[in-house]
Amino acid sequence: MQDIVTDSLRDLAQQLDAFARERDWQTFHSPKNLASALIVEAGELLEPFQWLTEKQSRELSPERRDAVASEIADVLLYLIQLSSALGVDPVAAAQAKLRLNAERYPVDKARGNARKHDEL
Amino acid sequence: MQDIVTDSLRDLAQQLDAFARERDWQTFHSPKNLASALIVEAGELLEPFQWLTEKQSRELSPERRDAVASEIADVLLYLIQLSSALGVDPVAAAQAKLRLNAERYPVDKARGNARKHDEL
Amino acid sequence: MQDIVTDSLRDLAQQLDAFARERDWQTFHSPKNLASALIVEAGELLEPFQWLTEKQSRELSPERRDAVASEIADVLLYLIQLSSALGVDPVAAAQAKLRLNAERYPVDKARGNARKHDEL
Amino acid sequence: MQDIVTDSLRDLAQQLDAFARERDWQTFHSPKNLASALIVEAGELLEPFQWLTEKQSRELSPERRDAVASEIADVLLYLIQLSSALGVDPVAAAQAKLRLNAERYPVDKARGNARKHDEL
Repeated sequence: MQDIVTDSLRDLAQQLDAFARERDWQTFHSPKNLASALIVEAGELLEPFQWLTEKQSRELSPERRDAVASEIADVLLYLIQLSSALGVDPVAAAQAKLRLNAERYPVDKARGNARKHDEL
Repeated sequence: MQDIVTDSLRDLAQQLDAFARERDWQTFHSPKNLASALIVEAGELLEPFQWLTEKQSRELSPERRDAVASEIADVLLYLIQLSSALGVDPVAAAQAKLRLNAERYPVDKARGNARKHDEL
Repeated sequence: MQDIVTDSLRDLAQQLDAFARERDWQTFHSPKNLASALIVEAGELLEPFQWLTEKQSRELSPERRDAVASEIADVLLYLIQLSSALGVDPVAAAQAKLRLNAERYPVDKARGNARKHDEL
Repeated sequence: MQDIVTDSLRDLAQQLDAFARERDWQTFHSPKNLASALIVEAGELLEPFQWLTEKQSRELSPERRDAVASEIADVLLYLIQLSSALGVDPVAAAQAKLRLNAERYPVDKARGNARKHDEL
């Protein structure tokens, strides 16, 4: 039961909708603006990694990791709001994309190939 | 029961982990690289909106909406992988952020205020 | 004469190179890292516009405009550094792209067409 | 003399202005939209680097380098258009920022310090 609650994007979507409605923010929350806000947060999420080596990025201090978690939260919150505004189920879309990727990148061809995304 | 499955980020995280392991892609999936891949996808998500008016962005055609859903999926998939790589629960982080925002933007002060994010 | 100095990207490139060398920062300035730093700054440049209407974005206060100018500077400085690191002349590349765009978007077909970039 | 022409952002700004006017595109080119278009291009610029190691990013093939140059061009063209729309001189802004950075990061304190940008 705890799992269901923790894992719920739907619950977050409802909270976010109430949050925006109570503050009359829906007028600002056009899909165009939400997509902008999302990438601004994605920039804040990338920022702590920009001068780190890949290895260092795998070994964040707890403080740094908490700061990154807060930026992950911001991206997720805007992704949920954008999905709601467009009537898209993000998890269903992600599952459809995963199935597509499984066809695009068969295991025997894709193994260890760094250039994986170049063929897209 | 259907709800739990559809709504499960944990399920997606497990599938993504298996997907990367089968292809030996973990070596590419440092947090630094995943944060880069995420913002690249966030750019592809913003792209269809860049010349639209806000009004037009609220009235996407079904074809355009499906294309946007596919980009939402890409952002979500990298967000899940980045969270897994860092040991972060994105939904718990989002809930914590929502509680923080409720304190930061009390309803009576924030109503209809476009400048809401400037004080951040 | 004043014009030449003000307009000089080459001059900026030389100053940036000296700046990084004096601080032993070249090791951080891989093209990968510079491209990351550039998009992080592009996010900071977009941030003040994210909740504005298009009309409001055309009517910034002088204070807001100065803040935006400072973000424009950051993007330009990383663009110059990335160009230098790759041996690319950004102005020559921009002129080549302009010629290409003139072929891609002939005046009679492109007039007032909001969908201009979709065909790319 | 050749130098002056090659190095001229002003010349590019004038060409871009004529290009947009001939196509009636000024209506789309609000600062808000141009800042969005810029970050979309910054994402396309980051994309070829996302799975590369830093070392690989320093050793691009000529073909890959040309493709990156084309994305650098796109970012520069939108940066110029955004600057024009706001009445900002990007080179003057960059020089002011460089002077500020020289104060912020004195050579003796900043030498080889990867964390340089964290204090910003």
